[in-house]
Amino acid sequence: MADDLAWTAPPAGLLRPGPDFDLATFDRASTPGFDGGKADGKALTAERGLLMSELQERLFAEGRSGGERSVLLVLQGLDTAGKGGIVRHVMGMVDPQGIDLHSFGVPTEEEKRHNYLWRIRRALPRPGRIGVFDRSHYEDVLVARVDQLVEEEVWRRRYAEINRFERTVTSRGTTIVKVALMVSKQEQGLRLLERLDRPDKHWKYNPSDVATRKKWDDYQEAYSDVLARTNTDIAPWHVIPADKKWYARLAVTELVTQALIDLDPRWPRPRWRVATQVAALLRTMDPENVPTDDERSETVEDSLADEREFAEAVAGATPSAAPAPEKGSGGSEDARSDGKNDKKKDKKKDKKKDSKKKDKKKDGKKKGGKKSDKK
Amino acid sequence: MADDLAWTAPPAGLLRPGPDFDLATFDRASTPGFDGGKADGKALTAERGLLMSELQERLFAEGRSGGERSVLLVLQGLDTAGKGGIVRHVMGMVDPQGIDLHSFGVPTEEEKRHNYLWRIRRALPRPGRIGVFDRSHYEDVLVARVDQLVEEEVWRRRYAEINRFERTVTSRGTTIVKVALMVSKQEQGLRLLERLDRPDKHWKYNPSDVATRKKWDDYQEAYSDVLARTNTDIAPWHVIPADKKWYARLAVTELVTQALIDLDPRWPRPRWRVATQVAALLRTMDPENVPTDDERSETVEDSLADEREFAEAVAGATPSAAPAPEKGSGGSEDARSDGKNDKKKDKKKDKKKDSKKKDKKKDGKKKGGKKSDKK
Repeated sequence: MADDLAWTAPPAGLLRPGPDFDLATFDRASTPGFDGGKADGKALTAERGLLMSELQERLFAEGRSGGERSVLLVLQGLDTAGKGGIVRHVMGMVDPQGIDLHSFGVPTEEEKRHNYLWRIRRALPRPGRIGVFDRSHYEDVLVARVDQLVEEEVWRRRYAEINRFERTVTSRGTTIVKVALMVSKQEQGLRLLERLDRPDKHWKYNPSDVATRKKWDDYQEAYSDVLARTNTDIAPWHVIPADKKWYARLAVTELVTQALIDLDPRWPRPRWRVATQVAALLRTMDPENVPTDDERSETVEDSLADEREFAEAVAGATPSAAPAPEKGSGGSEDARSDGKNDKKKDKKKDKKKDSKKKDKKKDGKKKGGKKSDKK
Repeated sequence: MADDLAWTAPPAGLLRPGPDFDLATFDRASTPGFDGGKADGKALTAERGLLMSELQERLFAEGRSGGERSVLLVLQGLDTAGKGGIVRHVMGMVDPQGIDLHSFGVPTEEEKRHNYLWRIRRALPRPGRIGVFDRSHYEDVLVARVDQLVEEEVWRRRYAEINRFERTVTSRGTTIVKVALMVSKQEQGLRLLERLDRPDKHWKYNPSDVATRKKWDDYQEAYSDVLARTNTDIAPWHVIPADKKWYARLAVTELVTQALIDLDPRWPRPRWRVATQVAALLRTMDPENVPTDDERSETVEDSLADEREFAEAVAGATPSAAPAPEKGSGGSEDARSDGKNDKKKDKKKDKKKDSKKKDKKKDGKKKGGKKSDKK
């Protein structure tokens, strides 16, 4: 929880497999780019999670105002690699209204009647959302290959099809973040054994898990080819060592947060005049109970303070591979231009501000600025 | 955060409108059944939220093993009543994989071509899930009535149709929890004004909000009739004072938690023999690295301890309207029968247990027992 809690290098670059990448020698218990331990990792995950949540709210607001952009997190990994834990613990930090989650299992009869990308297209995230694929179209070059569900020439053709498909998806405004969670064979064995030893985890176990485990080498080979052939610049892979769950969660949090920072979503400008709307609203309120101008201007200042805090959080801790987006201008400008129109506020705000300050004192690492409410 | 942090009476009964219920005199700043303040309310929300999350995981496990049961939270309320905040802060405490969330806005062209219940039926929760409706079929007797979108005889007929529909839904295994969030007109005015005063909240504001606010009395009348005519025993309404956001969130958390307690979901029993699977798994592991029997039996004990903790959390703080379900038998029995088969464990567990114990010490009110991973 030290102040220097940070990545030593941006994970987006670090975790992307290069031309010399060798899955066979990849250390699945390592923590690339992060020197701290589990407690540090969890603290940084929580801190960046707040920022991720704040950025997602802005993206959501953009989507509600005609924006088309979205993020798609593609989670791949063998049984026990921790995909479910990522959904629960990482995506669980974001407002459920901002998440479009889909799990892809064995195709249904209807899905089988269509091209393998049919069900994927239908599940793409709506504007403003973070889509999450728990497994994905990559199963069609993984299990489909290992279990010989289709001919070799069919799955071989799919690499190029997938690259084209992902190009189309990104061109429509979706940033794709692809993550391959890699556990060691030993760690997978231990995790399966725990599922067998704990009655409260039996439901997660399936006798087919051992059969799949026996195809370990085939899956490693299939993953190697996926990573070599679909690691495009517009939708790069990130290979994440997953023997340490806390590290995998930290890394995915950072990748998604960074994708959102790069999108740099801004609060949309209203299509109506604020002063007109305020006047109309005030006419519906009991004149005795309308907040004074001073009280209302504090509300605006509150908003500006939040923007500053947010800009600092974005500019601060993050070493970004991408050029740092110019922060603190868009939102704050909005706030200023608005402050000009109306300098007022309401009594309740005082109470809110007080409790907010208390919150901040309590939680020193809360940077993203947490809105009490949303959507 | 005192130990006696608790409801003075079960909110399920307390918040259900009786025959004498009068919406016009309903105090929307009150906190029925809860004597504490905001900090107490938040602490209890977090505590019960952990239990809610744990119970949801059991329901999810049941659903994955052939169970049909689910919960459906129906959220109704005027603009600014806090529906979005409930989704974010209450449902946000549950694993996103366990939530089926749907928002119902103005019907699309396709939806308009069908009966008003068509889109509702398609959005019912899958087995094991908590479905959340942000607005619902009740809009078809609220806005449809106030804005005269249909003839009076049409919306009048819908009360009975809705009651029949909800009967069908519950008969298929879905527990319906209906919540009407009631803000005062003054509080709504202040919340709308804040949206206008804060540029970061402009996107939540729509000029039609003031127009809708002007129909306040019509909406109150429409809500009164809804509460009188669709408050059935199988799908009762709960009217929640919503001027204090923390109270509304606390109350909804308790209602959903109680619904789950009443369902009493148990970890499903496996359809395979544990010993057989363990033997098969061990043959795939490096014999040097297999945990010892002692280590593995600690895993089982861990599981039993979690079950006990869970049973205490369920039996404890909750004053339930329903007879207390017999707890601590189902899961623990499973655990014992399993312990007989296999008495072993793994080295990693020790580390895990240690950090787990530390967690528990750190967080005294963590009762539901938090699984580190899921689904």
